[in-house]
Amino acid sequence: MPESAKFDQRVSVLTLGVRDLAASRKFYVQGLGWKPAFENSDIIFFQTGGMVFALFARDQLAADFDADPSSFGRPPCSLGYNVRTKGEVDPLLAHAASAGAKVLKPPMQQPWGGYSGYFADPDGFAWEVAWNPFWPIAADGTIKFAQ
Amino acid sequence: MPESAKFDQRVSVLTLGVRDLAASRKFYVQGLGWKPAFENSDIIFFQTGGMVFALFARDQLAADFDADPSSFGRPPCSLGYNVRTKGEVDPLLAHAASAGAKVLKPPMQQPWGGYSGYFADPDGFAWEVAWNPFWPIAADGTIKFAQ
Repeated sequence: MPESAKFDQRVSVLTLGVRDLAASRKFYVQGLGWKPAFENSDIIFFQTGGMVFALFARDQLAADFDADPSSFGRPPCSLGYNVRTKGEVDPLLAHAASAGAKVLKPPMQQPWGGYSGYFADPDGFAWEVAWNPFWPIAADGTIKFAQ
Repeated sequence: MPESAKFDQRVSVLTLGVRDLAASRKFYVQGLGWKPAFENSDIIFFQTGGMVFALFARDQLAADFDADPSSFGRPPCSLGYNVRTKGEVDPLLAHAASAGAKVLKPPMQQPWGGYSGYFADPDGFAWEVAWNPFWPIAADGTIKFAQ
């Protein structure tokens, strides 16, 4: 295998396929307060740490990889927003709910030792707001497993 | 809005719900060469830059946010793996295919000025291997939009 064919451990971009870009923009920009780095009528890019987070019209995302959009279902994945202190979880879930998110699971003590709850964005993408005392968060927001 | 309820722009964790954790492990670990930071019979965590990438048994992920797993469909999202040079795209797609990925779209020149193709992981999560000349990649693998 040539060196050039090695996959480093990274996710450069995460793109959510959304049904209504204006509704998603309203949730993430007006609601969560995120600032687009670039946007047009089809796509919105956000800088999220060292990666890019994108909201893309769902039918166009489907066309991009030759998928039939009718095969799309509820997203079988979740996104995590980790926080530094347990006390941040409840207000953030409440904030997301006030911005129109559906609370999927209210914050609760978790068997793995943390405290977290879930909300869904306008397309049903599940976000877990989590305090995980075992995963410290650096000043720049990144997480590093203990080595 | 109290300061504590502010969402910074970050995605701490991305968790894919997978049908067969052993098959997913084989693809990402043996196939792509990624090294788990932690794993047990239900979940595998990888350090991917400053975030965590997780493979989690799908039914358990569903239970985590009170979802009906039968509502899950083809994932309406994509992950991007960006590379520094155009010449890396073809060998990486070929590498993924040799590890069992389905090529969704062969590499091609894109209207936005880059060169990319898509493969699907064992659960149909679409990965775009992309050379985007407008998004330089730092030594640590991160991407920053021009300010």
